[in-house]
This record gives sequence, structure tokens and C-alpha cells, in this order.
Amino acid sequence: MEPRRVAKKKAADPKKLATELADTGRAFHARGWALGTSGNYSAVLKLQPVRLLITSSGLDKSKLGKKHFLQIDDHVNVLRGDGRPSAESLLHVAVVRARGAGCVLHTHSVWSTILSDRHAAKKSLAIRGYEMLKGLEGVKTHEHQEWIPIFENSQDIPALAKEVEALLKQDPRPHGFLLRGHGLYTWGEDLAQARRHVEIFEFLLEVVGRRELAEHGS
Amino acid sequence: MEPRRVAKKKAADPKKLATELADTGRAFHARGWALGTSGNYSAVLKLQPVRLLITSSGLDKSKLGKKHFLQIDDHVNVLRGDGRPSAESLLHVAVVRARGAGCVLHTHSVWSTILSDRHAAKKSLAIRGYEMLKGLEGVKTHEHQEWIPIFENSQDIPALAKEVEALLKQDPRPHGFLLRGHGLYTWGEDLAQARRHVEIFEFLLEVVGRRELAEHGS
Amino acid sequence: MEPRRVAKKKAADPKKLATELADTGRAFHARGWALGTSGNYSAVLKLQPVRLLITSSGLDKSKLGKKHFLQIDDHVNVLRGDGRPSAESLLHVAVVRARGAGCVLHTHSVWSTILSDRHAAKKSLAIRGYEMLKGLEGVKTHEHQEWIPIFENSQDIPALAKEVEALLKQDPRPHGFLLRGHGLYTWGEDLAQARRHVEIFEFLLEVVGRRELAEHGS
Amino acid sequence: MEPRRVAKKKAADPKKLATELADTGRAFHARGWALGTSGNYSAVLKLQPVRLLITSSGLDKSKLGKKHFLQIDDHVNVLRGDGRPSAESLLHVAVVRARGAGCVLHTHSVWSTILSDRHAAKKSLAIRGYEMLKGLEGVKTHEHQEWIPIFENSQDIPALAKEVEALLKQDPRPHGFLLRGHGLYTWGEDLAQARRHVEIFEFLLEVVGRRELAEHGS
Repeated sequence: MEPRRVAKKKAADPKKLATELADTGRAFHARGWALGTSGNYSAVLKLQPVRLLITSSGLDKSKLGKKHFLQIDDHVNVLRGDGRPSAESLLHVAVVRARGAGCVLHTHSVWSTILSDRHAAKKSLAIRGYEMLKGLEGVKTHEHQEWIPIFENSQDIPALAKEVEALLKQDPRPHGFLLRGHGLYTWGEDLAQARRHVEIFEFLLEVVGRRELAEHGS
Repeated sequence: MEPRRVAKKKAADPKKLATELADTGRAFHARGWALGTSGNYSAVLKLQPVRLLITSSGLDKSKLGKKHFLQIDDHVNVLRGDGRPSAESLLHVAVVRARGAGCVLHTHSVWSTILSDRHAAKKSLAIRGYEMLKGLEGVKTHEHQEWIPIFENSQDIPALAKEVEALLKQDPRPHGFLLRGHGLYTWGEDLAQARRHVEIFEFLLEVVGRRELAEHGS
Repeated sequence: MEPRRVAKKKAADPKKLATELADTGRAFHARGWALGTSGNYSAVLKLQPVRLLITSSGLDKSKLGKKHFLQIDDHVNVLRGDGRPSAESLLHVAVVRARGAGCVLHTHSVWSTILSDRHAAKKSLAIRGYEMLKGLEGVKTHEHQEWIPIFENSQDIPALAKEVEALLKQDPRPHGFLLRGHGLYTWGEDLAQARRHVEIFEFLLEVVGRRELAEHGS
Repeated sequence: MEPRRVAKKKAADPKKLATELADTGRAFHARGWALGTSGNYSAVLKLQPVRLLITSSGLDKSKLGKKHFLQIDDHVNVLRGDGRPSAESLLHVAVVRARGAGCVLHTHSVWSTILSDRHAAKKSLAIRGYEMLKGLEGVKTHEHQEWIPIFENSQDIPALAKEVEALLKQDPRPHGFLLRGHGLYTWGEDLAQARRHVEIFEFLLEVVGRRELAEHGS
């Protein structure tokens, strides 16, 4: 694993971004990380005031295209595009506010579902000692311990979003978090970095998940 | 997971439906949910009297095309198309009659095979607490418990179809059912909804299956 | 699972057959059933005297094309084509002689490797009670027990081929056999039937393998 | 498994080689062996003095193209191309120096990560009795025992490279090695042979990994 090149985008082109986010969504669906219309993906168009490009709700991710993205403000009002934003859009806004992220990705895999449930009582999962950790932005050694917060799943998304925003503002360490029985949120300064983080977390969750189930059972 | 958009089809176009069902079948085959010619897929063309578009029997699903679909009535008489309908077509008719479904999909995965066998004595499998459940039509919370009936596998399909129809008429809760050692049937008001249900059930069966085998063995 | 249509090929067209076998090989490689140049595939061009179309040895199956097939006689002399036939070609000849098969396929998957090793002492593996069994030619019910012989792996292929031919002539039941730590051989009257048998056995071996490892360990 | 044809390349064409290495990288990413920008791939352009074609650092392997390759000398100075070489390039140089390899490939899979960690204390992993071993260059029988050295993972790559080079010079047996919690390095006289070795090791690590976790836990 290596430091990686990040091309900072100066001016966000919504059509190009939507196309790239859609490609990402279809790739995640192919891997089984976005089945059953699960998952949502966003990119920041402006920070002051917040303007997000985000997937419309309830779509089959295998068929995701650039037309399936909305532009919303930080109260999830639709500024442009057809369709309804997901209630979970508030979690994207929370991450952008707390971290200044340029891109937020939510996946929903078998291993994130299992591990977020198994570790829910501890409210976090720690992963340490794997080279893959070095792919997380700013991490310099595999001896790094990544601490992944786990939030109880909830249908009260505004309350959950506040909780997420508060924790991410207070604690600069996490590169992602889990919702119990629900999946992973991670982010990056741009899509390439966020997508790299998804792949790294999903890989590590599979490694840890296979070992834990073998050791301790369900 | 989010409520999702459902575009109600007004007039069913058999060619378009057959093309979409064939695409679905090839995608299921790619995931390993339709190996060895297993699986069959149908869509309702008319409800009064019942007219179904359904896969012809014994086809390699990796090569499924629109020409491989038949039109049948509710006694499985072929009204149009070449080929023989599967005996299991009666199960599709049973679901359509009991639930007014617009589309019925049958997959045959490793995890549905294992779990339907492990839980056969209890005649059902209950799944609760996962966000993915919210993708099942009408479900509002991950705290929902989905109760999945399991029927003993049988070569007497007419008798099995009656049993299925009776249960689905009497109990409005299930979104799908399992045949022991055989696989999953699920449905929806249209293909998009039924396909979403397949992905959700297959995802949840993998989650539950991995945890159960780790805990209890085979 | 259903009876399936089998289009009997009257006159074998070597180019068409090679193209179809090559497509099959690439599909098997994509599933991880033919990694590391493993696997070989043949189709009968003539039975009296035996003339087989068969993969040349040592090829990356992800790149298999029609040019990679040889024509051989039943002593594995090359009658047409460039390249060397695999020593295992004798096993294809043995199956053709014993069963009059039109097509023989050899895959090398993780689950066939594990199960053929675990059950080697018993010299066979029995599978029963799964609907998928009905896809094996001539099987009418999931209550069928498929008895799969396991041969000790050997580098003396002529001796192994004799052993295989003798068993398959004497016992009409098996639809395939395993070589210990090496993989699956199965066949059919044509490619479609043989490929269906591969998918069925690989599916069942995964089901049985996952359950056995969970129950008994390695 | 069979002896395989190896077409010795006389004069290395950097563009063709880069295209083929890029195809290989995308194929490995598709299998989950190169997630999160992990992995790097090289081919020798000249041996005296060493001139390597090698992936630039930090790239999404799903998008790898021929433009993403650099030419470096054996001190990892960039002679041609844009981008930074990975620090791990020194490990490629070490393998080329010790073994005269024409191609070196590094993958980072779930099973190589788990097994390299489980066996780290023993500093090696031995695999024996599987037919797939015969695909490793020069191996004639499945009874061969492949001894795979495991090096402790380190951020001091120059020191690690020296250790690797010393061991590979001294011991002619290994066809590859593992870095703890980090992945596999293997090589070949050309890309085809190196890629075959990757597939063989990844296959065997999955077989051994599944059996070990079932037997002993994490």
C-alpha cells in the first residue's frame, strides 16, 4: 500500500460527477455492496452554502445513471433534478459539515451488516495490524489502529445525523462509521479517495468478519 | 434503505417484459442464483383471465433471451411461444392468484438451499433487526420481523401449489417463501419490485446463513 | 428444476464446437473454476473411431479461443491443430468410451478440491435431498442420492484412465467423479448437458462443503 | 494440471507489456485481489543494467491503463513516465536480482492477509498434496510441498528488500512469499507465468484458509 495521487478538483462539474458516482454505484452493486436499492452516494458541489449532488431514493443501483442524481441543500430541499432524496441524505450533510468531505459513500455489505451487529454493544470496532489500513488517508503504518464508531440503527434520521455530526466533529480519528445491521459510511476529499476508503473498509471487514465468525460463532 | 419509486405499468408489452425478465435471469445466473438451468421468472400480462409470460423449461439462464418466454393460462396451457412450461409454473399462478402479484421470480442459491433445509422442521425462518428488511414493500422499520414460510419440497407440484396458494391467501405477511433444499420464491407488483425482493432476501439469507453456520454448524 | 431441452447435434462442426467450448472455459475461469491454467474440455467429433476435439495443454483459460483446440484420436495422437494435448486427455477418452458421452468437462474449484480430499478415504461422496440433483440427466426426484466416486490423484494418467473407464463401465449411476485434491470430471451427451452438470455439481459441492466445514472442521 | 506453453519474449515492447500488465491489474481488481489501490506489477525491460516497467503508486486498479507505468532503475529512479514509484518497487528489484524473474506481481487478497497473519510466528506456510501445485514452474507432482516464506510486514522497505533478496538467493525453492497482513509476491519468467503463479497461490490460499478457519478458528 502506498501514498496515492489525489487530483484536487477545482470546479465541480455536476454532470461529470454524477456520471462518475453512477459508475461507482454500479461497481458496488456488482460486488454485492448495494443490493435491493440500498446505498447512496453524494459529492459536494459547494460548501458555502452546502450544495450536494446525491442519489435519488429507492433506485436499483445496477441501473444507476447520471440522471438519477439530485441537487440538495443542507436541509435536504431539492434544488434541481427529479425524484425524492433519501432521508439518509441528512447523514451525508452531517459528514460534510463535520469533516469538510468532498464525497460521501454509503455501502451495505454482508460483512458490514454482520460486524456492526456483533459489535453494537461496544459501540465500536477496532482494526489494527493490516497493511490495507495504510490506504486510509493520513495513515502511515499498518500498526495504526482504526477505530470505527457503530451507531445504533434508527428510523429517526435527524436525531441520528446530529449524533453522527457531533461525534465526527469531536473526534478527528475515524475515516468511516457503521450503522448497526445497516452498513458503512465513509468519505474522502474527492470521489477517488472516498471510493478507495470504501474498498479498504469492505476488505478489512471481510478479513475481520471471517476470522471472528470462525473464532466465536455468529 | 429508502422507500422506492415504482412506475406502475399500464399496458404490459410482452416483448419488452420478456427482454427485461431475460436480463434479470442472466444477472441472477452471474451471481450464482440460477445455475444448472434452475430458476424461472414470470410476469402477468392479464389478470382476468390470468395470462402469464413465463420462462420455458430447462434453459441455461446465462443465455436467456426474450424468445425463451411462453404465454400461458392459469392451467399452464401454452397460448403462445415455443417450448414447454415448467411444472413449477403452477407455483407462479398460485402466487398471482393469492396476491395479485405482477411478477414472480424463483431463484436457487447456495444460502437459500442451506437455510431452507436447516429450518425445514420449524416450517419457517424469521429474520429481524436488519435495515435491508425495509426494502420489502410496505415495511417501515428494521425492527420488522419477516416471517418466511418453508414448504417441504415435492414433485407433486399441483398439491404444493394449492398449499402455497392457501397459505398466501390466509396470511398477508410473507413477501416470499422457501422450498426445502430448493430455493426462494418472491414477487412484486412489477419486475423492479420483485427483483428488489430477490436481492433483499438473498442478501439476508447470506447474512443469516453465515452467522448460523458459524454458531451451530451444518 | 425442470426437465430441459436438449438439441441433439447431428453433424459436429469443429469450429463451432471449439468456439462454444472456449466460451465455456472463459465462463468457468470467471467463476474461479479454472484458475492457473487448470481444466480441460473436450467434445466428440466421431465415435468410430474416436476423434476428440480437446483443449491444448497449459493455457490461461481467461484467454481461451477456438484456435486453442486440437483434434486427437483415442491414443492422444494429434490429428489436427497446434499445441500439445494434456496427459489428462486420456481421462476424456475413458469417459467417452465408457459412457458414449458427447462432451467431457473438467473443472478445478475450491470446493471440489476440499471435498475430494476430505472424503478420499471413503473413495466417494454421496449427495441427497437437494432439488438441484434433478438437473442431472435422468434424475426425477430430489430424493435421488448421487454417488460421486473419488479417485486418488496420480501422475500415472494411463493407469488412472483405466481405473476410471472400468468403474464407469461397470456402474451406470455416476454423472461425474472427483480426483482427490484435483477437481471434477463430468460429461453429457452434448456441451449444454455437460455444462449443466458442471454447474449442478459445483453448486452442490459448495452447499455440502460449507455445511461440512461448519460441522466438522477442515 | 499440465505443463504449459511459455512463449519466451525476445525483445520487450514497453507499450505492449504495460497494456498487458494493466489488463492483469484490472482482472485482479475484479477478483478482489487489488482493492483500495493495493498491489503493484512489474516487468523487466533489461537486466544489465536493471530496467523495470512498474505501476505508478496509489492508483485505482480498476482503472489501470498503460499510461500508469513508469520505467525505473534498480535504485527506483524514474527513467521515464509520470508519477511516483511505490516504495515497494524495491521488493520487485530484489526478486529480479535474486531470481532473474521477467515479471513480478503483488496481490493483496483476503486469504493471503489472513494466512500470512496466522502463520507469521512460524515465518512460513507449507502447502502440499494439491494438484494445483503442479502449475508452479518446475513442479512435477501434486506431492510436492511448496514452502512459502512469510516476512514480518515493515515500513522500512529497503531493509525488507535486503532480507527478501538474501533469502531468495539462498533458497531456490520458493515460487512466492507473503508479507504479514499484507499479501503475496510471486513472479515468473514472463507475465503469463507470473499471472499463472498468482492464480495458483490465491486458489491454494483460499483452500487452505477455509480449512484452517473451520478447524482452528481465527
